[in-house]
Amino acid sequence: MKILVINGPNINMLGIREPEIYGSKGYDALQKTVLEEAASLGISADIVQSNIEGEIAGHIQKALGAYDGIVINPAAYTHYSIAILDALKAVNLPAVEVHISNIHAREDFRAKSVTAAGCTGLISGFGPDGYRLALRALYGFLKKQEG
Amino acid sequence: MKILVINGPNINMLGIREPEIYGSKGYDALQKTVLEEAASLGISADIVQSNIEGEIAGHIQKALGAYDGIVINPAAYTHYSIAILDALKAVNLPAVEVHISNIHAREDFRAKSVTAAGCTGLISGFGPDGYRLALRALYGFLKKQEG
Amino acid sequence: MKILVINGPNINMLGIREPEIYGSKGYDALQKTVLEEAASLGISADIVQSNIEGEIAGHIQKALGAYDGIVINPAAYTHYSIAILDALKAVNLPAVEVHISNIHAREDFRAKSVTAAGCTGLISGFGPDGYRLALRALYGFLKKQEG
Amino acid sequence: MKILVINGPNINMLGIREPEIYGSKGYDALQKTVLEEAASLGISADIVQSNIEGEIAGHIQKALGAYDGIVINPAAYTHYSIAILDALKAVNLPAVEVHISNIHAREDFRAKSVTAAGCTGLISGFGPDGYRLALRALYGFLKKQEG
Amino acid sequence: MKILVINGPNINMLGIREPEIYGSKGYDALQKTVLEEAASLGISADIVQSNIEGEIAGHIQKALGAYDGIVINPAAYTHYSIAILDALKAVNLPAVEVHISNIHAREDFRAKSVTAAGCTGLISGFGPDGYRLALRALYGFLKKQEG
Amino acid sequence: MKILVINGPNINMLGIREPEIYGSKGYDALQKTVLEEAASLGISADIVQSNIEGEIAGHIQKALGAYDGIVINPAAYTHYSIAILDALKAVNLPAVEVHISNIHAREDFRAKSVTAAGCTGLISGFGPDGYRLALRALYGFLKKQEG
Amino acid sequence: MKILVINGPNINMLGIREPEIYGSKGYDALQKTVLEEAASLGISADIVQSNIEGEIAGHIQKALGAYDGIVINPAAYTHYSIAILDALKAVNLPAVEVHISNIHAREDFRAKSVTAAGCTGLISGFGPDGYRLALRALYGFLKKQEG
Amino acid sequence: MKILVINGPNINMLGIREPEIYGSKGYDALQKTVLEEAASLGISADIVQSNIEGEIAGHIQKALGAYDGIVINPAAYTHYSIAILDALKAVNLPAVEVHISNIHAREDFRAKSVTAAGCTGLISGFGPDGYRLALRALYGFLKKQEG
Amino acid sequence: MKILVINGPNINMLGIREPEIYGSKGYDALQKTVLEEAASLGISADIVQSNIEGEIAGHIQKALGAYDGIVINPAAYTHYSIAILDALKAVNLPAVEVHISNIHAREDFRAKSVTAAGCTGLISGFGPDGYRLALRALYGFLKKQEG
Amino acid sequence: MKILVINGPNINMLGIREPEIYGSKGYDALQKTVLEEAASLGISADIVQSNIEGEIAGHIQKALGAYDGIVINPAAYTHYSIAILDALKAVNLPAVEVHISNIHAREDFRAKSVTAAGCTGLISGFGPDGYRLALRALYGFLKKQEG
Amino acid sequence: MKILVINGPNINMLGIREPEIYGSKGYDALQKTVLEEAASLGISADIVQSNIEGEIAGHIQKALGAYDGIVINPAAYTHYSIAILDALKAVNLPAVEVHISNIHAREDFRAKSVTAAGCTGLISGFGPDGYRLALRALYGFLKKQEG
Amino acid sequence: MKILVINGPNINMLGIREPEIYGSKGYDALQKTVLEEAASLGISADIVQSNIEGEIAGHIQKALGAYDGIVINPAAYTHYSIAILDALKAVNLPAVEVHISNIHAREDFRAKSVTAAGCTGLISGFGPDGYRLALRALYGFLKKQEG
Repeated sequence: MKILVINGPNINMLGIREPEIYGSKGYDALQKTVLEEAASLGISADIVQSNIEGEIAGHIQKALGAYDGIVINPAAYTHYSIAILDALKAVNLPAVEVHISNIHAREDFRAKSVTAAGCTGLISGFGPDGYRLALRALYGFLKKQEG
Repeated sequence: MKILVINGPNINMLGIREPEIYGSKGYDALQKTVLEEAASLGISADIVQSNIEGEIAGHIQKALGAYDGIVINPAAYTHYSIAILDALKAVNLPAVEVHISNIHAREDFRAKSVTAAGCTGLISGFGPDGYRLALRALYGFLKKQEG
Repeated sequence: MKILVINGPNINMLGIREPEIYGSKGYDALQKTVLEEAASLGISADIVQSNIEGEIAGHIQKALGAYDGIVINPAAYTHYSIAILDALKAVNLPAVEVHISNIHAREDFRAKSVTAAGCTGLISGFGPDGYRLALRALYGFLKKQEG
Repeated sequence: MKILVINGPNINMLGIREPEIYGSKGYDALQKTVLEEAASLGISADIVQSNIEGEIAGHIQKALGAYDGIVINPAAYTHYSIAILDALKAVNLPAVEVHISNIHAREDFRAKSVTAAGCTGLISGFGPDGYRLALRALYGFLKKQEG
Repeated sequence: MKILVINGPNINMLGIREPEIYGSKGYDALQKTVLEEAASLGISADIVQSNIEGEIAGHIQKALGAYDGIVINPAAYTHYSIAILDALKAVNLPAVEVHISNIHAREDFRAKSVTAAGCTGLISGFGPDGYRLALRALYGFLKKQEG
Repeated sequence: MKILVINGPNINMLGIREPEIYGSKGYDALQKTVLEEAASLGISADIVQSNIEGEIAGHIQKALGAYDGIVINPAAYTHYSIAILDALKAVNLPAVEVHISNIHAREDFRAKSVTAAGCTGLISGFGPDGYRLALRALYGFLKKQEG
Repeated sequence: MKILVINGPNINMLGIREPEIYGSKGYDALQKTVLEEAASLGISADIVQSNIEGEIAGHIQKALGAYDGIVINPAAYTHYSIAILDALKAVNLPAVEVHISNIHAREDFRAKSVTAAGCTGLISGFGPDGYRLALRALYGFLKKQEG
Repeated sequence: MKILVINGPNINMLGIREPEIYGSKGYDALQKTVLEEAASLGISADIVQSNIEGEIAGHIQKALGAYDGIVINPAAYTHYSIAILDALKAVNLPAVEVHISNIHAREDFRAKSVTAAGCTGLISGFGPDGYRLALRALYGFLKKQEG
Repeated sequence: MKILVINGPNINMLGIREPEIYGSKGYDALQKTVLEEAASLGISADIVQSNIEGEIAGHIQKALGAYDGIVINPAAYTHYSIAILDALKAVNLPAVEVHISNIHAREDFRAKSVTAAGCTGLISGFGPDGYRLALRALYGFLKKQEG
Repeated sequence: MKILVINGPNINMLGIREPEIYGSKGYDALQKTVLEEAASLGISADIVQSNIEGEIAGHIQKALGAYDGIVINPAAYTHYSIAILDALKAVNLPAVEVHISNIHAREDFRAKSVTAAGCTGLISGFGPDGYRLALRALYGFLKKQEG
Repeated sequence: MKILVINGPNINMLGIREPEIYGSKGYDALQKTVLEEAASLGISADIVQSNIEGEIAGHIQKALGAYDGIVINPAAYTHYSIAILDALKAVNLPAVEVHISNIHAREDFRAKSVTAAGCTGLISGFGPDGYRLALRALYGFLKKQEG
Repeated sequence: MKILVINGPNINMLGIREPEIYGSKGYDALQKTVLEEAASLGISADIVQSNIEGEIAGHIQKALGAYDGIVINPAAYTHYSIAILDALKAVNLPAVEVHISNIHAREDFRAKSVTAAGCTGLISGFGPDGYRLALRALYGFLKKQEG
């Protein structure tokens, strides 16, 4: 079972970026968290990060045939990227949207997810641990599909 | 560690209610899922269900001092209950909002969560397994707080 | 053929409540009207009234298996109760929404029915006689389904 | 007692027009239904149909002095015709708005009735039988006025 | 100097139609008022009335080459007829929009004039005398153009 | 018969102010036009101008008992001054709102008149001649009231 | 003179609930404040609290014939409960809406009161002392009515 | 293969009507363009024009059984005619909506097409040549359906 | 303890102004009511009235250092004056907003208070007696601050 | 005559992407269709595809001086890319916007084209054949410009 | 070169007014800053301040012929004063709008400038130094115009 | 002191792009202006330009630690790029947003800046000279911080 983890704009700034919202752990720690959880689930995970909307759409496209599912944090693009939504719908892979902060407890514009409609489900507000939950959710979903 | 799981209106109709959206597993199975996951995490979980907004607010109020955290599926009330939001803010307990269906991939009015602003985070779209993830998310959050 | 007639908040105040809008006949008279019409159609009708949104949802839930159809006046809840809408969709029984006043000829917020989307049809503006029409409409609908 | 039944645009296409929404019975059958119900109530009914908003307003105007009441299905014009609303208010005759489909369970723009504010009441969602109910509702209303 | 006076839907019901808003003088009196004022200004005026949006557009089209200006009361169509707006822009004749009631002191939807953007100016709220003012305004405008 | 003519902000800049919209005739010419028309109607007219919203409200207040009616061009305040609306309602004098340009054929925000709801009627789009029409409209209205 | 004081959802959490907004005095203290003020005015006051919208509507209904007036803090329901608004209109008793915090200085959705339209007046922002003012306002209103 | 070309309000004013937007070629030239293109495609085309919304709906209705497809320029009605939308859906014929000007590069209200949802596709902005493209598009579509 | 009472536009018209809304007691009586209540509380009160938004802002500014608190009825400016809001925030004095009528039971635009966000609290709907309550509320607030 | 054909995000997924909406023909077939049509018109066409908004803007910029016109399918970016709109306006080349599906018959957000305001015209709903029509439309437009 | 610097409501409260937003430097210091910068540019500057919208419009009017340009901080009026916008358009002088705080990083209603559309440009967020930049910007603009 | 100047999409088209809005000076001239002004201030400035939203976010990210401040013209992205806003907040460097045209005097959608909330201040409307002002503003801000 192979999972692609896609991180959107400014996720690479973790630890530096508004730490009162996103926490003080850096992007390296996040990556380590993801790989550890994948290992503990006995699956393989690759991680990509991009600030560019269209590159993220490209990563999604390339996941088709290469990965069994996607964990995606579209970050700022969550709120307006129809291009990413369309890419998710195009590949039609199981996908979990994850957010580090609770997007429903911030500015109004962050409560709206354009991209989640192209995903299986959404997890938000649990900090970097949200990625653990997302991997686990995806793992469970894929296991059920197999079965 | 004691968790209160609160289910809102029509969750008791699971299995009967729009099965193409909510699945064919009944409410008993959901309860069993919750208790199993709690057991596997070594924590205790009580489950309540109510169709009445104010009773749900009451359950939240009574959780204070009696439980370490809340898993809540406010169901229809998610989208308009300021009373439940205020109850969550009043007790100020760690709380995870969970939805069986992906609320961002349905009617517009379901994409808006009024209550999530009173919670730690939100998990939606993973069917009954969302409750497993919610318990695990809450467990992780509480463990971190302890540590 | 058994019908459940559900009246929402403040319908029990009929005759007292804003008589220039709702008329001067009391709630007893309304109940009598319903029972007479049911009798004349050769069907049985039970009537419940509640001010509580969640109790109304509960009445709808309990109608499943016990009644062939529902006549419902959700009153104030018409305009915002997703919980009642969801209950109507959950039981999926033939249901007729009835309003004593013409909801399209009053304040803007009364012209919007959230709950009617869970019903077979809607009748509004004919005073207590609307219940006669609703029973008759439901009777006709059920007869056709049988046939 | 004389009733004018006015059908708006595309009602003449009944049976052909989106049968999954409007049913497979044709316009002739609808007219027969209306005349039968009128006969059974011992009243006289004339039926007109027009695709033209202003002609419908004209039919309403001419009803004054010639008919005791109006049954009207403004169809598409329901949602935007202030001209028909004004005509209904101008003649000030008892009038029942009827819709074949449940206008509150379709596209958002169909849930809004501009014309119902000029009517006594509204009946929607019962297919061609809605006309029976409308005649009966109007009959009851006129009888009460007489009395 | 020849003026075409165009009256929209339900203006022919004057005297009968909501007299508390539109007054008790009938349509004949209105026509007489128009002709008297035209005579007193030494100009010729023709009056047409139609309930049909497209016929009103047609009258405007035919005015080109036959009349020097238009006085128009689009009545209900004022608030939504882009067809009449386009006709007014197409012929590009001096035109005065007139309303019997004060459209800014009634329901919100009546305060909006779609058609006035195709006219030279607007006069509303002066009852049938508004037509006198409109003729005079148009007369003055045309005189100035000549000059 | 005594009329108070009230001009709002920037009307004193006539001739200088955006002449492609407001024309090239200056404020002196406007005043002369007003006085000439008043004289020709055999009535007396006083003219005041103010840039200050509250002063305009004050002029309206002082008109009570001193004048038989008001001609008012609230200019920019037309679109938001509830204070002027309230003053007009407070004195309850016959009042005609006048605009030099056609407010329905410019920016969206100019099409809305907050103040016209406190007036008898509105005249817009006829340049300085609008004041002539306004005086005449007011004169006619007062004559009819007397009669 | 008998007054019913009705407290809505989460008012019973006073002292615990967001003390930076609602203060540190508990619900017992609030009740004592109410009873003291009533005593000092020489009137009798009963206090009820409910988290349930429909129960609050029920308390209002039962006040008819039993109390001379109502002091109500609908709390969260202030912002959306048409059911409570309708109950207040149904009993048509003098009623004062009171809020502990200043609802106009918080989130946008708290600035809107649906229920105040069914009350004589509204008092907000004075903490528990608002209840003293409300009793006094109601007392004054009733005295004037008597006189 | 027979095509009905339906032109809406004011299209008959081509050449006269706002030539900076619609060009200087007249309606005769437009008709000739249509017939030439039809001939070159080896198909037959009839052209009708009407200013009346309901007549346009009627033309669409009558096309059923008589024509293989429709080219329609609903002109002003594009933006609000649910009646024409419903007629297009009722006959369910291949239909191409065409606009002479680019409706997305003008006033906001022109960018919205209510009627296009009843058509196969839309072509706008190419002047009278848009009709050539529309015929060709329809021809291609019908050929593919046949094949 | 010195209080400044600031009355906004048209308050000076009390008794004359829409008496069905504002009552028949004049502005003199209002002033007397204020001074009596102040005397009974043993505090000093000065009263100013202005129709001019900026003058009201000026009165607020000058209150700083000269008065202990403000009672303000911004009247029409309540609904749009950011200038008055900013002045209230600038001086940061305890302030009570008062309205004679119940602003939540009138036109929609009156239910919105822009200025209340700069005040301690709001009292509306109690007629001139609202000023008594406002003084008392302010007195209580200042006493508590002292204590 | 040289044309640049620019395809936006996910167009490269044709055949895989939601085939019930976009058809089962792949991107290669689309490219072939374009080149064939260009050849049949005797013009040269280059095709580029990018998922990246800014790259699409870059392609448009580079077209200036190198191509005579543009055919562009901005796909998802159609609905929000002011950057692409500005690029189209900057180069000011004849441009045709093309969409495979009928954007007016899908979700509301797809009916809005931000980018079409920078184009000559728009063609939508004809599948891959829309590109043929677009090339032909552009060819005709350029020929006319030359002529 | 003569510049008029116009300060709107509450700017005179600088240093006292919400210092966490507007800083602790007083209005005297601001004036000194302006005069120093003017001196350093070798131009003359006069400064006026008013809380009154109409007086600000008056200052703008009087600048015509007396000054070469305007620096204006309309403060609260920025967000709604069409009167000031109209005055700026009337005099048509080069004008720079300046704000002490960053109006795009505060409440939503402060991000909207009604008045900037009447100015050459806008500078916001640089504290009192914004006036230096504004003078310099205006100076540069006027120099270029001369040149 | 090192400053990074970031130019967004289509700024590289200066001189060619809508010269009536953006002027006739090219991008080279703009760069020269920036470097000259930097030199005159005795600071160093690097200039980058990108059409790609995510690349702009990347430039902002890389500025951290390498530059003392940022001057940014996000061009089209100003109005919708939450990704750029988030990048600016993430690095938390002093930043000045600059626009060549006056964004408050154009289309509605250009008056809204999403990105300015991540900046110290905003300068718009002064053509290429706006960059001079921006550098100077940033220089002043940094000097003050140092001091």
